[in-house]
Amino acid sequence: MAKPLNIGMIGYGFMGRAHSNAYHKVNHFFDLAYRPVLKAACARSAEKIKAFADKWGYESTETDWRKLVERKDIDVIDICTPNDTHMEIALAAAANGKMILCEKPLARNGEEGRKMVESVAKAKVPNMVWYNYRRVPAVTLAKKIIDEGRLGRVFHYRAKFLQDWTISPDLPQGGTALWRLDVNAAGSGVTGDLLAHCIDTAMWLNGGIGEVCAMTETFVKERKHTLTGKVEKVGIDDACAFLCRFENGSLATFESTRYARGHKALYTFEINGEHASIFWDLHDLHRLQYFEYRDPMLQKFKEAAKAAGVTVEYQEAGTLRGWRSIHVSDGDHPYMGHWWVPGLQIGYEHSFVHQVADFIKGLETGTPAMPDFADAQKTQLVCDAVLKSAAERKWVPVGK
Amino acid sequence: MAKPLNIGMIGYGFMGRAHSNAYHKVNHFFDLAYRPVLKAACARSAEKIKAFADKWGYESTETDWRKLVERKDIDVIDICTPNDTHMEIALAAAANGKMILCEKPLARNGEEGRKMVESVAKAKVPNMVWYNYRRVPAVTLAKKIIDEGRLGRVFHYRAKFLQDWTISPDLPQGGTALWRLDVNAAGSGVTGDLLAHCIDTAMWLNGGIGEVCAMTETFVKERKHTLTGKVEKVGIDDACAFLCRFENGSLATFESTRYARGHKALYTFEINGEHASIFWDLHDLHRLQYFEYRDPMLQKFKEAAKAAGVTVEYQEAGTLRGWRSIHVSDGDHPYMGHWWVPGLQIGYEHSFVHQVADFIKGLETGTPAMPDFADAQKTQLVCDAVLKSAAERKWVPVGK
Amino acid sequence: MAKPLNIGMIGYGFMGRAHSNAYHKVNHFFDLAYRPVLKAACARSAEKIKAFADKWGYESTETDWRKLVERKDIDVIDICTPNDTHMEIALAAAANGKMILCEKPLARNGEEGRKMVESVAKAKVPNMVWYNYRRVPAVTLAKKIIDEGRLGRVFHYRAKFLQDWTISPDLPQGGTALWRLDVNAAGSGVTGDLLAHCIDTAMWLNGGIGEVCAMTETFVKERKHTLTGKVEKVGIDDACAFLCRFENGSLATFESTRYARGHKALYTFEINGEHASIFWDLHDLHRLQYFEYRDPMLQKFKEAAKAAGVTVEYQEAGTLRGWRSIHVSDGDHPYMGHWWVPGLQIGYEHSFVHQVADFIKGLETGTPAMPDFADAQKTQLVCDAVLKSAAERKWVPVGK
Amino acid sequence: MAKPLNIGMIGYGFMGRAHSNAYHKVNHFFDLAYRPVLKAACARSAEKIKAFADKWGYESTETDWRKLVERKDIDVIDICTPNDTHMEIALAAAANGKMILCEKPLARNGEEGRKMVESVAKAKVPNMVWYNYRRVPAVTLAKKIIDEGRLGRVFHYRAKFLQDWTISPDLPQGGTALWRLDVNAAGSGVTGDLLAHCIDTAMWLNGGIGEVCAMTETFVKERKHTLTGKVEKVGIDDACAFLCRFENGSLATFESTRYARGHKALYTFEINGEHASIFWDLHDLHRLQYFEYRDPMLQKFKEAAKAAGVTVEYQEAGTLRGWRSIHVSDGDHPYMGHWWVPGLQIGYEHSFVHQVADFIKGLETGTPAMPDFADAQKTQLVCDAVLKSAAERKWVPVGK
Repeated sequence: MAKPLNIGMIGYGFMGRAHSNAYHKVNHFFDLAYRPVLKAACARSAEKIKAFADKWGYESTETDWRKLVERKDIDVIDICTPNDTHMEIALAAAANGKMILCEKPLARNGEEGRKMVESVAKAKVPNMVWYNYRRVPAVTLAKKIIDEGRLGRVFHYRAKFLQDWTISPDLPQGGTALWRLDVNAAGSGVTGDLLAHCIDTAMWLNGGIGEVCAMTETFVKERKHTLTGKVEKVGIDDACAFLCRFENGSLATFESTRYARGHKALYTFEINGEHASIFWDLHDLHRLQYFEYRDPMLQKFKEAAKAAGVTVEYQEAGTLRGWRSIHVSDGDHPYMGHWWVPGLQIGYEHSFVHQVADFIKGLETGTPAMPDFADAQKTQLVCDAVLKSAAERKWVPVGK
Repeated sequence: MAKPLNIGMIGYGFMGRAHSNAYHKVNHFFDLAYRPVLKAACARSAEKIKAFADKWGYESTETDWRKLVERKDIDVIDICTPNDTHMEIALAAAANGKMILCEKPLARNGEEGRKMVESVAKAKVPNMVWYNYRRVPAVTLAKKIIDEGRLGRVFHYRAKFLQDWTISPDLPQGGTALWRLDVNAAGSGVTGDLLAHCIDTAMWLNGGIGEVCAMTETFVKERKHTLTGKVEKVGIDDACAFLCRFENGSLATFESTRYARGHKALYTFEINGEHASIFWDLHDLHRLQYFEYRDPMLQKFKEAAKAAGVTVEYQEAGTLRGWRSIHVSDGDHPYMGHWWVPGLQIGYEHSFVHQVADFIKGLETGTPAMPDFADAQKTQLVCDAVLKSAAERKWVPVGK
Repeated sequence: MAKPLNIGMIGYGFMGRAHSNAYHKVNHFFDLAYRPVLKAACARSAEKIKAFADKWGYESTETDWRKLVERKDIDVIDICTPNDTHMEIALAAAANGKMILCEKPLARNGEEGRKMVESVAKAKVPNMVWYNYRRVPAVTLAKKIIDEGRLGRVFHYRAKFLQDWTISPDLPQGGTALWRLDVNAAGSGVTGDLLAHCIDTAMWLNGGIGEVCAMTETFVKERKHTLTGKVEKVGIDDACAFLCRFENGSLATFESTRYARGHKALYTFEINGEHASIFWDLHDLHRLQYFEYRDPMLQKFKEAAKAAGVTVEYQEAGTLRGWRSIHVSDGDHPYMGHWWVPGLQIGYEHSFVHQVADFIKGLETGTPAMPDFADAQKTQLVCDAVLKSAAERKWVPVGK
Repeated sequence: MAKPLNIGMIGYGFMGRAHSNAYHKVNHFFDLAYRPVLKAACARSAEKIKAFADKWGYESTETDWRKLVERKDIDVIDICTPNDTHMEIALAAAANGKMILCEKPLARNGEEGRKMVESVAKAKVPNMVWYNYRRVPAVTLAKKIIDEGRLGRVFHYRAKFLQDWTISPDLPQGGTALWRLDVNAAGSGVTGDLLAHCIDTAMWLNGGIGEVCAMTETFVKERKHTLTGKVEKVGIDDACAFLCRFENGSLATFESTRYARGHKALYTFEINGEHASIFWDLHDLHRLQYFEYRDPMLQKFKEAAKAAGVTVEYQEAGTLRGWRSIHVSDGDHPYMGHWWVPGLQIGYEHSFVHQVADFIKGLETGTPAMPDFADAQKTQLVCDAVLKSAAERKWVPVGK
């Protein structure tokens, strides 16, 4: 029987819901040594957190996160609050010996992130950051393809994250719902919110980034602030694009915006290798597009046959090459054996279930699920370099 | 606070899991007067049902469904067993005054179905059949488009449900996992399993079917039977296609097979009307393809303007017509306001959550969620006519 | 230097233009022993045929096709007139020893077709019917894939040809532009016009058709006739769908209509085999969709390695299966080496150029290009069976 | 009757064929005051140009382009030679009063381009550069949509041109076939060859570019030179990506490479405006993807109705928004009325036919077809800035 893993959730918004759902589902679909128990939920508003706790079955509530992180009956602190509170909460949670699951981005900037990394290292507590897209099965399959060496030398990487929900200048900034538009709460705009996802996936798939050259833009310069009621300057980047070189020599372009009419959450990446290419698109997250110039297994057989002096008549199927649309829903696709039957797709929320499952497996095996704080901090440093490059209009090396 | 609705689940396979998951999730995402309580799970194997109950949190288990349907603490009997047991269980459950949720198809044939309809009518118990695809948001949106009159006169309907999992002759038939290949357990092959889905959706969207003309085929004539261990004749239809006319005068083609290499669960439908057409595909269930020849709202304005003598200069945008790929993930799309944010897709399992939510709303409002047994029986009668037509090689009217 | 092949063209409409264009282009892109010379164009209207001849560079004109077929300086008669004149012209042309290129369908029905086949057999003149879609490179590639045995046993074939141009009841029938809606001129509606294409391709790819069961509909019952000026009954089939069995045991569905809003010329076919499936779509004619469950070459190597006792470590790439979108534009794709560079697509008109090139190669080699009249007559017989089946509402065997 | 326009073609490669084909076809499909006459073809190799002239019907040949540009019977010089000869030929042709049609890019760099612009301005001869993609009907439709104001404020532009044909290091550089890999002949690599196309379209659709920031890479550093037979340094850019800002305030990313496995000629562009977005892809050149957030005509009617006090009941169709795949093959789509019937696609070569037609119409009307040399020079200046930026690793303003 799975042992309880007591969760203390801070926040009740979009991510609070996504994580709570994952905690509820994970043991129905994965055999694990631990089962998350929804012990307490915390937010400043007693009324709102009570409603959230009732809906999701949290056993208790808190209105002060400092109390929550000190509670003896809590094993894990899950940080689902705006970015400006990540560091403070994480440091306190680590000091209290709690495991920490922190929403992405790790922090508002690398300096905050560095302190967070140090705090969990010192406290020796398990820690993880919710870069959930790594665990969309199609993305995990991409990683598998790359790790098998099917791409050969990599020439290009390109990623985009395009949205269109802030085009209207009537949209205000700040407050519970719109803190992502408030630079103080968010730290940055699309860079920390969306490009951070792209960068996390990219470095996982393609290695470290050496230097970047970026441009940013704030299309709507002023917006009413929800909290102050006044029209205030918009401090975030509405759009950001950058060029970079990976340490493996490949060239890349990254772009994100909230002003791309027609795209709600179009996160795409493509990687072009010598022998094969991969493309993925969040709008059809259950598919992976794959082009293989030559099947490496067929190559192996050819070489073996040649070496053995065996003659095989064959026709090259070069005329049959094409981009394959892989419907990642088979039992032998990553994670998919835990769900339904071939052809029946899962959705966005399942990436969080996978991440909880992997976190728990990490506890079981001692090999922590990634990205942990230290791994997520690498993304933070790229974001810092990107914002610096845009501000200074020049190439900037990524810090270590 | 939502009142408990005590569920007695019979079966623990694919559908047992899908429904249990829906019961767990529904109150996290929908505000409802009732909340499903997993009271008891039932199957012949004590060991297997115990494991299932532990995993999913059922409070108790039974090994005899007759006992379950008599338990006073059960409000709803959920029938997730092979088709040959639907009738017997349903009749007993109705006799005991239980609400009944029955997996599709309603029964093995119309005769069984008729008795089931009569039993719930007599017992006056709420009842529903799990034709879940009606509640995929894109499909519900299709219904909305049709109900708004955007199609005009309908000329054509076409549906397919293509799979490829039984191509190997080494696959056995029968038993817990493969009862769908055993005609005694299933009643029929693709007709009752897959075409039943197509027919249910079609009649919901396009009305009654008058007459049909079908052909069927069994490609693999003999398969080893899991239970007997012997090679036995295959009694099911491996493939079935039929022509038909709807009562509204439209023409249709339907086809299903488990021998369409490359398709795992490719359920598609298309409807062509005078002014607009719709296409949907289960492999990308979160999208709806829509073609509109003319915007009826623009027509209304034109007419009103003309009537009022108002002159408006405009350019017809006929050159901009095209099939639209609607990513059904906005808050104002059917059911989607209950989930995440625009652009983030849900999957197969959510259709069951929606159906539970609607069933409960039906209890609240007194307007039952469809399809109930009587509605599902219509599909049964079309299936009967299809199989008869194939056997007799002639057009057959659909029974009433 | 290529020898002249003197063309006598009858008709100046859509097909007159398509063929003339092909005659002009063919020697620029193919090295051939003959070059078409546009010797004469013929139509009843002296004015119209003069304009056509001027535009396209025909050396002379005729207003009576009987004169044209008797001219000594004409080698080839190209019949681009409405269907009701095909037989009479062909018989006269054959009697005069002319080669004949006849637009599809061969005739209005099998009886006319039979006489045409006999006439060219008796006269021993080269003859061909313009079923041009066989020579769209993607379709030719499909044929190659099938001929290599990559599909294994075939289970299913399905084809559609959907248009939407006759939905308006205000469209008249008959006359030069709209003879396809006049049953006397056309012989039938979508069956002879569109399904004939589907059937020709299908039998080329998948062999003979044994029996059919069809339904037809005429949605708009009366239309004004262009020639008489009166509202007259519409005699053609607006839509036709049929089920059939091929001689190889595969099952098929065919459908065509001119009432499928949103589809201009959506000719699609799909073939499902044991090992692989193929899909093609005229709206993107330069692509072929291909799904391969197992690479037969890899199988060969595996078997050879095993036989030779050679051990090769390999990973099955089953998780990488998917429908490939083959962009048929490489130099080693059928016909494509004659055109531009990889990635640059050709269009509809090129299928005619390929057919002229193949016809001329047939003259050079003595192996005639297909389909000749006898081959096209097979399609005629299927069309006859389809129309008979629809009229009599029963299965009808295809005549021989 | 159309008057002759005597063409003197220099070069016989890919472009020599594409242009010759266009000259042959244009009068069959367009009613024009002039008809191109293939008067002379010119290349250094007497044998090769003779073969070319025979195949394409050129009346005569020359082996010295200086003679050709002096011939009195030539009206138009068409420059289809490698980039390093464009300037010299163009200057001589202008000096001789010839009209000039020059393959793109105009020249190897802005300095050469400037002289060419001056020469035609001084000589007052009609001139044009073959940026053919402007006249792919879908691209022309994009321009029309933009000119109608359907996009509102533009936020983003992104373009890519991805190929994969130079991945093999065994491919040599230089000579007739591979001069594009030889920096002396080509001037640059993908920048002048591929990005030049992207830039030309972009400035046509979205206006001038203010400043750029680029990176380039040469993946294969040395290749055997076809002419010298020696392994020599590769001087071209194999890949180039750049960020830029348009004068209208929109942000853009551009990328091109010949190392993107799986892409043959994937030229794509996307433009995101306040109200609508457009996407196009050369691999399916007959389609335009279009997303409209609100129909401006419906807006007009609403406002007019409101102003007139007319009440119209309507439903917003916001839930029906989606990217439309416009199959640009209707008679009222740009250029398409000249070709076949709706649904039947044209291909790459037709863009050249359209350009010839427009050039001739320019002669008729006195409003020259674009881009002329001066217009194409703007692209040259952007290319210069891009290469300078990559070399100096900084933002560079585009020269005037």
